[in-house]
Amino acid sequence: MNDRSPAPELIAPSTRGNESAILNAALDAFGEQGFNGASMRDIARGARTSLSNLYNYFPSKSELLAELLRRANDEQLARTRHAANAEATTAAERLRAAVKAYVGFVVDHQVAALVAISEIRYLAGKNREHVVEARDQTQAIFEEIVADGVSAGEFTTPYPGDAARNITAMCSAISTWYRPEGRLSKTQLAEEQSRYALALLEARP
Amino acid sequence: MNDRSPAPELIAPSTRGNESAILNAALDAFGEQGFNGASMRDIARGARTSLSNLYNYFPSKSELLAELLRRANDEQLARTRHAANAEATTAAERLRAAVKAYVGFVVDHQVAALVAISEIRYLAGKNREHVVEARDQTQAIFEEIVADGVSAGEFTTPYPGDAARNITAMCSAISTWYRPEGRLSKTQLAEEQSRYALALLEARP
Repeated sequence: MNDRSPAPELIAPSTRGNESAILNAALDAFGEQGFNGASMRDIARGARTSLSNLYNYFPSKSELLAELLRRANDEQLARTRHAANAEATTAAERLRAAVKAYVGFVVDHQVAALVAISEIRYLAGKNREHVVEARDQTQAIFEEIVADGVSAGEFTTPYPGDAARNITAMCSAISTWYRPEGRLSKTQLAEEQSRYALALLEARP
Repeated sequence: MNDRSPAPELIAPSTRGNESAILNAALDAFGEQGFNGASMRDIARGARTSLSNLYNYFPSKSELLAELLRRANDEQLARTRHAANAEATTAAERLRAAVKAYVGFVVDHQVAALVAISEIRYLAGKNREHVVEARDQTQAIFEEIVADGVSAGEFTTPYPGDAARNITAMCSAISTWYRPEGRLSKTQLAEEQSRYALALLEARP
């Protein structure tokens, strides 16, 4: 994927028959009941298709979770990278842009973001590797910006080592509490979180 | 509970027969497989007792999760409250103490802290109410300290409303990444996190 291109939709209407209906139903089921609580039968029902047709698309529940988390983590990475690579003269500006993009993903795909942090532990093998790699690359973008800002004297925190992890943790947690109908719009929330992130790094004013 | 008393152990060796073995086995099972993935049979096996004896102690898996989360959230509340109520002349000092206590709980009871954030969504009714109440009271301690510090001019963040939530989110997330054998001791981690929290609030130096 070109880093400068806009991120794709997570579950676009598919040309492949029921695929998007199945992925949306799986996301709902995993969001409500968790990976272990949701059954393939629930997912087939949610997608208004038969169990046997569901198995034609995905041979197991694990493959479904893997596909969802692959899409979620890939899009979060693409958005964050796109923002971090945009024209910016300072590490602080890049951090602001990257945090806003990350928060934007969490708000736009709140259930997927929640499932991504809570259900990843049920993935194994190759499926897990790909998802963990995308997640780690997203984390690495923040780590690189923090390191650049510290080198340039923009960020003065005595603890740069765990700062990026705290920033992504507090932004990921938005998936557990944000309500679109609440006090904050997505834009306001993204602005708030980017300010918290810069403050956490003890950015020079 | 007296706020000044030290917090109790989460699962003390019990005088009630197998109870502590059952609670420890349930914690392990929920930590590894989640609430929906773990079975009462797994838990009985882990506690080296029979399924029928397990049901004598806890009539359902939900009651077991409720008991664990009640203990976890009550202890986290007790420790945080104790620290926040200790002698301190400034909001910054109270915040540092409360963050350190909160982090200390997460490190001391890492699996319980992880289960508390990831599995609470499977509790319902009265069981859920009690746990949510303790969690909200812990959150309220941080909110009160933030409000006090803002009133006193100690904290200058333009966004006090969501600051406490971000602080507890980043400290709770420690349960997902901390390794006791890693770079940071519990004391160092608690010190780091309290510095991040004060920085996030844009505390005056």
